Amino acid sequence: MMTTHKATFLPDNKEVSIPEGTTVLKAALLAGIDIASPCGGKGTCGKCAVVILADGNRTQVLACNTAVQKDMTIEIPDKSRLSNQKVLLSEKQLTEGEFWRKYKLAPVAGKYHVSMKKPDLTDNMNDLDRLMKALKTDCGIEDASISLDCLRRLPDAVRKGGFEVTVTVASYRGRSEMIAVESGKAEKPPYGVAVDIGTTTIAASLLDLVKGEVLDREGSYNKQAAYGADVISRIIYADENRDGLENLKAAVISSINGLIDEMLRRNGLAPDDVVAMTCGGNTVMTHLFLGVSPAYLRLEPYLPAAVSFPPVRAKEIGVGIHPEAPVLTIPSVASYVGGDITAGVFATVPDTADELNLFIDVGTNGELVLGNSEWLVTCSCSAGPAFEGSGVSCGARAMEGAIDRIEIDKDSLEVSFSVIGGGKPLGVCGSGLICMLSELQSAGIIDRAGNMKNGHGPEFCLVPEEKSATGSSIVIAESDVKNLLRAKAAVFAGIRTMLSQVQMDINDISNVYIAGGFGSHINVTDAVRIGLLPDLPENKYEYVGNSCIKGAIFGLLSKEALAEMDALAGKMTYIELSIGNQFMEEFVSALFIPHTDISLFPSLTQADEKSGKE
Amino acid sequence: MMTTHKATFLPDNKEVSIPEGTTVLKAALLAGIDIASPCGGKGTCGKCAVVILADGNRTQVLACNTAVQKDMTIEIPDKSRLSNQKVLLSEKQLTEGEFWRKYKLAPVAGKYHVSMKKPDLTDNMNDLDRLMKALKTDCGIEDASISLDCLRRLPDAVRKGGFEVTVTVASYRGRSEMIAVESGKAEKPPYGVAVDIGTTTIAASLLDLVKGEVLDREGSYNKQAAYGADVISRIIYADENRDGLENLKAAVISSINGLIDEMLRRNGLAPDDVVAMTCGGNTVMTHLFLGVSPAYLRLEPYLPAAVSFPPVRAKEIGVGIHPEAPVLTIPSVASYVGGDITAGVFATVPDTADELNLFIDVGTNGELVLGNSEWLVTCSCSAGPAFEGSGVSCGARAMEGAIDRIEIDKDSLEVSFSVIGGGKPLGVCGSGLICMLSELQSAGIIDRAGNMKNGHGPEFCLVPEEKSATGSSIVIAESDVKNLLRAKAAVFAGIRTMLSQVQMDINDISNVYIAGGFGSHINVTDAVRIGLLPDLPENKYEYVGNSCIKGAIFGLLSKEALAEMDALAGKMTYIELSIGNQFMEEFVSALFIPHTDISLFPSLTQADEKSGKE
Repeated sequence: MMTTHKATFLPDNKEVSIPEGTTVLKAALLAGIDIASPCGGKGTCGKCAVVILADGNRTQVLACNTAVQKDMTIEIPDKSRLSNQKVLLSEKQLTEGEFWRKYKLAPVAGKYHVSMKKPDLTDNMNDLDRLMKALKTDCGIEDASISLDCLRRLPDAVRKGGFEVTVTVASYRGRSEMIAVESGKAEKPPYGVAVDIGTTTIAASLLDLVKGEVLDREGSYNKQAAYGADVISRIIYADENRDGLENLKAAVISSINGLIDEMLRRNGLAPDDVVAMTCGGNTVMTHLFLGVSPAYLRLEPYLPAAVSFPPVRAKEIGVGIHPEAPVLTIPSVASYVGGDITAGVFATVPDTADELNLFIDVGTNGELVLGNSEWLVTCSCSAGPAFEGSGVSCGARAMEGAIDRIEIDKDSLEVSFSVIGGGKPLGVCGSGLICMLSELQSAGIIDRAGNMKNGHGPEFCLVPEEKSATGSSIVIAESDVKNLLRAKAAVFAGIRTMLSQVQMDINDISNVYIAGGFGSHINVTDAVRIGLLPDLPENKYEYVGNSCIKGAIFGLLSKEALAEMDALAGKMTYIELSIGNQFMEEFVSALFIPHTDISLFPSLTQADEKSGKE
Repeated sequence: MMTTHKATFLPDNKEVSIPEGTTVLKAALLAGIDIASPCGGKGTCGKCAVVILADGNRTQVLACNTAVQKDMTIEIPDKSRLSNQKVLLSEKQLTEGEFWRKYKLAPVAGKYHVSMKKPDLTDNMNDLDRLMKALKTDCGIEDASISLDCLRRLPDAVRKGGFEVTVTVASYRGRSEMIAVESGKAEKPPYGVAVDIGTTTIAASLLDLVKGEVLDREGSYNKQAAYGADVISRIIYADENRDGLENLKAAVISSINGLIDEMLRRNGLAPDDVVAMTCGGNTVMTHLFLGVSPAYLRLEPYLPAAVSFPPVRAKEIGVGIHPEAPVLTIPSVASYVGGDITAGVFATVPDTADELNLFIDVGTNGELVLGNSEWLVTCSCSAGPAFEGSGVSCGARAMEGAIDRIEIDKDSLEVSFSVIGGGKPLGVCGSGLICMLSELQSAGIIDRAGNMKNGHGPEFCLVPEEKSATGSSIVIAESDVKNLLRAKAAVFAGIRTMLSQVQMDINDISNVYIAGGFGSHINVTDAVRIGLLPDLPENKYEYVGNSCIKGAIFGLLSKEALAEMDALAGKMTYIELSIGNQFMEEFVSALFIPHTDISLFPSLTQADEKSGKE
C-alpha cells in the first residue's frame, strides 16, 4: 500500500498530497512552485535551499535531497525560487526597414476570402472542389491540401456564410494546406507567433500577418530551469528520469503557452486566432520542445537526432494556438549550433562578399559564426552559463534588481554600482560581472590569473548586507572569478581556433555582431579589457539584440526567408573544437586577464602605457 | 440531480447503469449489444422489438421508443439482433494475374533495410540526415519526410541496431514519409489492409506488401446498421442526434477494427505490423468513416463535403493498425457515386476503345457506370436496400440460413427452395427475392403489375411455420412485391436514362459487369425475366464480385494504380437523374414485370411464344 503525505508550502499556502519518499523539490513542482535547481537535482549547487518548519523549529535543507516522510510544512525563500520577475526583453527587435528591404510580405499562413458560385442541381460540385476552384480564381492558390479538421468544419461554414468563406492557408516548405475555415468575411486578420526558445529565457512576439507588424512581446524564464541550469544537466535529467523527457517538454511548452496566453489576453485574441508559429532554439532546446530525446548529444560523437525537424501541428505538441497551425522550427547546424544561431545569422549578418563577419552569441552557451557570402564556419565553445549568473555565487540573470555596472575606486576600493530598475541589488548580471572582473583586476584586488591578491581574503564584498535586497551581503569569491575566467577564455579560444582553421587573423575581421540577451547589455570596452572579445575598434562591433527572434519573425513573415534559413543551416560548416589540441591550448592561454599573449590586445597595452601602469 | 437506473439484458446477462429516460435501444448499445434498427430509431420499422420482464410478465415493446424509467430486465430476441453471423464473402476477389498484367508491385508503404556508416568525431552527421543519405544510396529513396513519432524513435533505434535499421516509408499521392523505424533487419514484411466499407457489410483483406499477396479475408455487418438500414436514415441520425456523427463514426471504425483484429489474431500479427490501409465506400460511408458530416447530401442540391478526401494517419481516426500508417480513401465521383464505384470500375472494367461497357453495382443502393476508354458517365438510382432484405418482411441478407433460390410449381403452387449453408430458412436474400418475383408471376400468383391475383390473399406463404427456422411462417405480401418492383424499376430506369443521355441503346452495350455482394449470387436469367437487367445475351454478363475491395487492393499494391483511380474519379461524368422527367417516366414504365414496353425484352416474348403463354 502506498503511503501519502501532505506537503504545505509557505508563504504560498499551497498544499499537495504526494507518495512517501517524494523529494521536496518534486513536491514543490507538483504544487506549481518553481524552485531553482541549476544542477538538476543532484544536490551539488545548493540553490534549492528551503526551510522545514516543525515544532517551532526552522531547519534549512536542500529541496532536492530531502524526502517527504511525514506531513510537512515547508517555507520557500525568495532566493530559491525561479524568479517570477519579468525577463528583460532586448530593446532591439525587428527593425521593419531591414526586413522590407530584403523580402516582400508572404507569411507562412494567410487568410483568403472567397465568394463561391452558389450550387444548384445543374452545378453540384462538392464543397471542397468548389472552394478550391474559387481559391484558384480569386486568389491564385492552387493545389492546397486540406486538414481533416478543416474538412470537417467546411460544410457548415460554407452554408452559414452563404457560400462565402474565409479560409486560412498555411504555406511553407513547398506545401500548402487549408487549416481553418470561417463563414463569411473574417473579422480578424491572421496572427502568428515567433518564439526564441532559450535555455534560460524564452521570448515571444505576436504578429499581425497582414500588416507584417509586431503587436506585442513577452518574455519569461524557461521553466525547464527547475530541472537544471544548462543543456547538459537537462539532457541528463531527460535521460535518467522516468518521464524526464516528458517533464522537460511539458515545462518548455508551459513556458511558451504562458507567454502566448498573456499576449492573447492583452490583445483580446483567442488561441484560434494564431495560425502559425516559427521558433528557434539551440539544438537541445529544439529536441526537448518536440519531445525528441537529446540523450546522444552528450555521448561521443555527440549526434543530434536531427538538425532539420519536420513541421508539426500545434495540437501535436500542445502549443496553445490554433490546433491545426503549423509550428515550424528553424533548422540547426549541428549538435551545439542550433536554429537560434541560424536565425540570428540570417537576420543580422549581411551577406557580404568582401567583408569578414563574426557573429557571437553568448547566452547559456557560446556560439560563433565566421564568414562571408561565400563560406561560413561555426563552432560552439562550451562557455557555460556563468555570464547568465549560474555557477557564480553572486550571479543573477539580467532582471530588475541585478547590478549591471560596477566601479571600484582604485584607492579606497569603494564599490559603486547601478541596478536595473533601481533599488537595492539582488546580485550581479552578465554585463555587471564582466565589468566587475575588469574593475577587480584594475583595482589590484585580483591578479591577471584571477587569484585574490594578498590582503584580500577568500572573497571580496561588493555590497554589504544592509545595502542588499537579499538580506545577505553580495560577495565575489576566487572560485567565482575562476568560473568567469573559464567562460571568457572559452569564447576567446573559440574565436582564435576558428580563425586559425580558415587561416585568418583577428585583424581580418570587418564586423562583429553580438547577439543574445547578454549582447544587449554588454560593454565592449569592458569585454575587451578582460579578454572576452577580440581587441578591435569599437566601431566594428554591433549589438544585434535577440537576433534569434528576429530570424523567427522573418521566417513567419516570408516563406522565402524561411526557405533561405533552411538553406543557410546547410551552408554552415561546423568545426568540432574538441578534435585536436588547438582549442585546449588556446583556452589555457586565455585563462588570464586579458590573455597570456598580451600582444593580442594592443590597445590595452597602449592604454596601460598611457596610464602608466604595469 | 441525475437519476440513474440499471438495465440488465438477457440472455447476454449484461448490465449497464444509464440516466433515467435513456431509450432501451441506446442502453443496449452501451451494453455492447447491437440491435437491428433499420429506421434509425424512429419507431417505424418495428425491427427492434424486445421483451421487458417484470413481475413474471413479458411485455413486448420497441427498444427505440421505450425509455428506462426504473431498473429493468430486458430480453433481446435473436430476430432483433444485428446478426452475429459471418458475412458471406464474394468468392471472386483478386485474381493475381489481372493485377500483374497491368501493374508492377509498388505498394503505398514499404520497409527498407539500410546500413549506415558509423559516425565518429570527424563524421558527425545527425541521425536523420545519416539515415536519409543511406536511404538514397542503398534504396534510391530521396526527399522522404519523417513523422514526428518516427523521429522520436529514431535515436534509440539507430543505436540499438548498430546503425543498421529498417525504415518504413509510406509513398502515395506524390509524397513520401518515414513513418516507422526498427532496429536492425526487420523480421516481418510490411502488411496492409484493403477495406470495402459497405452500408450493410464491410469486407477487409490483409496483404503481405512484399509478396503482393492476399493473406486473409474477413467480413462483417456494419455496426452502423443499428442506427438505420440505408444511407439516408444514417444521414438523418447523424444530423438529428447529439453525438450522432460521432456514434456512426465509432460504429464503422469498430466494425473495421473487429475485422482487422480477427485477421491479425489468425496470422499472429500485431497492429503495428500493418503500415497502410486503402478503403473504398460510397460517399456517405466515406464521410462517416472520416467523421465528416454528410448532412448536406440529403438536402438539395445534394452536395458532399468532398469527393477526394485527404489522407489521414490511422491514429487520427482510430483505426487499429500502426498509428502513423496512412489511411487512403479512394475518391468518390459525386454524392451518390462513391469510391466503391471508382475502385470497382477501375479493377474490373476493361479500358476499351471500341466496346461499350456497363458496370452495375446493386447493393444498399444502385450505381451504374457506362462508357469506354474515351468517356464514362455514371448515375445513382435510389434502388433502396430491398434486395439486401430491408423493406421486405421476409427479406434477409445473403447469409447462412437465407433462401437464395425458389421454385414454385405452376400447377400445385408448391414451393421448393435452397438455403445457403443448408438447414431451415430464416428469410429470403436478394437472389432469392429476384427468383421469387419471377416465379410468383410465372405461377400466376401475382400479375405483371405486382398485384396479388384473385384467390390469393394479401400474402403468399413461401415456407410454413414448421419448416422455418424463425418459428413463424415466411410469407410474401403484396406490399413487399411492390417494394421489390420499385427497386428493380429504379435500376432499369437508370440504365435507360443514362443510355438515352448519351444517345445510345441497350443493344449498343458490349459487356455488363455486375458487382457487389449482390452480384455474386444473382441469376441473370431471373433478373432479366423480372426486368431488373436489360435483355442481353447471357454471355455479355460477367459477375465481378466485390470489385471495390479489388480496387482497394490494387491501390494498396500499386501507387500507380492509386493515382489512376484518383484520375478515374475525375474522369467520370455524373448524371443527376432527378433533373428533368425522364427518369421518373422510365421508372413508372418499369414498374411492371418485366416492363410496360415488352419490346425491350425480345427474348422473353420469344420464350413466352415458345411456351405458348400470353
